[in-house]
Amino acid sequence: MLKLYGFAASNYFNMVKLALMEKALPFETVPFHGCQNPQILAVSPRGKVPVLETEQGFLSETDAILDYLEETQPGIALLPGEPFARAGVRALAKEIELYIELPARVCYVEVFFGGRPTPEALKAKAGRDLVKGFTALKQRARFAPYAAGERFTLADLYFLYSVDLAVEVGKRLFDVDFLSGMPAARALLERLAENPNVQKIAADRLAEAPAFLERVRAPGRTPG
Amino acid sequence: MLKLYGFAASNYFNMVKLALMEKALPFETVPFHGCQNPQILAVSPRGKVPVLETEQGFLSETDAILDYLEETQPGIALLPGEPFARAGVRALAKEIELYIELPARVCYVEVFFGGRPTPEALKAKAGRDLVKGFTALKQRARFAPYAAGERFTLADLYFLYSVDLAVEVGKRLFDVDFLSGMPAARALLERLAENPNVQKIAADRLAEAPAFLERVRAPGRTPG
Repeated sequence: MLKLYGFAASNYFNMVKLALMEKALPFETVPFHGCQNPQILAVSPRGKVPVLETEQGFLSETDAILDYLEETQPGIALLPGEPFARAGVRALAKEIELYIELPARVCYVEVFFGGRPTPEALKAKAGRDLVKGFTALKQRARFAPYAAGERFTLADLYFLYSVDLAVEVGKRLFDVDFLSGMPAARALLERLAENPNVQKIAADRLAEAPAFLERVRAPGRTPG
Repeated sequence: MLKLYGFAASNYFNMVKLALMEKALPFETVPFHGCQNPQILAVSPRGKVPVLETEQGFLSETDAILDYLEETQPGIALLPGEPFARAGVRALAKEIELYIELPARVCYVEVFFGGRPTPEALKAKAGRDLVKGFTALKQRARFAPYAAGERFTLADLYFLYSVDLAVEVGKRLFDVDFLSGMPAARALLERLAENPNVQKIAADRLAEAPAFLERVRAPGRTPG
């Protein structure tokens, strides 16, 4: 059986978890916190979650895992069959990751973990990058009703688990609502929040939150 | 015919250009500089290069473009046929991009364009991230002789056009040789430099360098 390594507060872990659940695949989760210990690096070269354990070995990097599931597993497809449309979904997912998730991530410790303030230069760069990232999202995404069109795709995984965090970063650090003027994006977040699998993942996250916060606030620890 | 938009100093442009050349596909290049002008954003939502123009429209994001070429075009395959091996190549390429290319990129303006110094907080984070990124590369990559094994793959595109720049950043800003202790990685860079297509791309880059530097050093301009 497939095993998904990670922890419930990780948005990338939850992207893969939702893909597995939407495809109705059997899987186990294995508690795994990223760091630079040799035992962890033997499983995940950069010490990151999630990791998927398959019969052939470990796979890391969310989009490589998602492509692997797409190519090998039954259940609903999360990419269109037609190559140009597939590329469009992949590009949208990548744009959300590079231009929204990654800049917002720089501020997660301050905003979500009660940690040290983000250095000003990093915060300023994150703010500039996020404005461009949301401008790109507004232009690229279809929200019809899903991010890439009529069907739920890989792009919705990135959208769901990146945009909410980035919006919170915008409100808390920049006093900006990045979804202002994007009612269809808000409607999609609301629609996705009604999905039973999304609700299960949110409940798992909430249940694990106290232990997670204790973990990341311990001296010398940083979130995986 | 496929058209590749971008400029010869862009390492991502050169990744796609090399893929097209290795596959022996006919294509034209179209000069295109990323920025936030509406005309540019209509082609590339985040104002980035490269963009591939196909009969069906424009595609952006390098790995979406590379997957599209893989799925639709003849010529040598740059991904293995077996899904677990494909995922391994994709993961390696992604790790090079996220953990080597992106942190090094923060320092490109200072190191390569003679621009303003990188703010200290950004530079310090880049340095920490690059150490972890090269540690991951050392563990993950096979260099046998190519990055992912016996054959040239997508991972070599990312390796070739990211690692050299990151190594230069390491030498110039951190007084560190990130390839120290990785002779097989050095040997791969030397092997790739002998590839005629790589030599053509390097020559194109050199020919365009003066105009590129003039462009990025103009007041108010930043590289795409």
